[in-house]
Amino acid sequence: MAHINLPDGIPGIRGPMMFRPETAKPLNELVDVLLRGAHTLSPGERELIATYVSSENDCRYCQTIHGAIAAYHLGGNEELVSSVKHDPQTAAISPKLKALLSIAGKVQQSGKNVSTLDIERAREQGASDLEIHDTVLIAAVFCMCNRYVDGLATWAPDDPDFYRRRAAMVAQDGYVASTLTAVAAN
Amino acid sequence: MAHINLPDGIPGIRGPMMFRPETAKPLNELVDVLLRGAHTLSPGERELIATYVSSENDCRYCQTIHGAIAAYHLGGNEELVSSVKHDPQTAAISPKLKALLSIAGKVQQSGKNVSTLDIERAREQGASDLEIHDTVLIAAVFCMCNRYVDGLATWAPDDPDFYRRRAAMVAQDGYVASTLTAVAAN
Repeated sequence: MAHINLPDGIPGIRGPMMFRPETAKPLNELVDVLLRGAHTLSPGERELIATYVSSENDCRYCQTIHGAIAAYHLGGNEELVSSVKHDPQTAAISPKLKALLSIAGKVQQSGKNVSTLDIERAREQGASDLEIHDTVLIAAVFCMCNRYVDGLATWAPDDPDFYRRRAAMVAQDGYVASTLTAVAAN
Repeated sequence: MAHINLPDGIPGIRGPMMFRPETAKPLNELVDVLLRGAHTLSPGERELIATYVSSENDCRYCQTIHGAIAAYHLGGNEELVSSVKHDPQTAAISPKLKALLSIAGKVQQSGKNVSTLDIERAREQGASDLEIHDTVLIAAVFCMCNRYVDGLATWAPDDPDFYRRRAAMVAQDGYVASTLTAVAAN
């Protein structure tokens, strides 16, 4: 049971977002810009960063829903998502994304852990300032979301198909629109 | 030197916010709602939560600027801010705020660390669902901001008067307006 009185049957971050729409609005706008805005990193790559950080924070809801959204963008490749969660450095992804995920893993522990060497490695693999900035901010944003979801003891469904269905909706319509839909439907 | 090419002479989170105004907008809106919106917790109490979490994350810029904003709201009482950073449980604050700061400290480590007992203690001291929700989210938001500021190795001024001057501006005008002013002035 959640620590506060949240709407029944609404999983993960969506319960507190319905409870507090004033904060849900900028939160969803932030995530839409970072994960879905025009970018040199694909939506699938950015969702992998969100998934990896959520996995390192052991947040079941966030790693499962963002893993499902990443897989949706990556042609349904759930094995690739699992391998990134297990170890980004041996996964079948680009050297640039491996370097960015290494930075994201440092941010998950502490911003201070990101070293000049981490940045140099990413640059050597072609990462731009914007890609480095957004990697740091995506990692930081999911350190927030994971703490929000788990700090209120929200409910996370067990059924993988729930996350696949929701992932298709979010991937197609975005975070702001999907949240509005969920509110209207409940 | 910052890890990416940020505007010269702009401290802390404001450098990356000028670099990426698309994400700065929802970030500032979120912080304005949480720290300055109409609430049963005073702006000073909410800034103390932000300051304490930033101190636990050892983020020099965030703990100093939010500590200065907290002190501004609390009649200039910088000693009270220092005592909360040192140990909220022995500081001269209400039992309710002590219980909420205990929850914030758990969130800083991991959302999973917040226990039913922590929530019961806060309720016994009169905390509402909204106050508990916002405490968890403020703590989570500052775990994000601290990682954003330190993960990009941004610059933090040494002069305490810099933070006092900036604090007065933010306390009077808010986060969104103060950021727009800073952008216009630079």
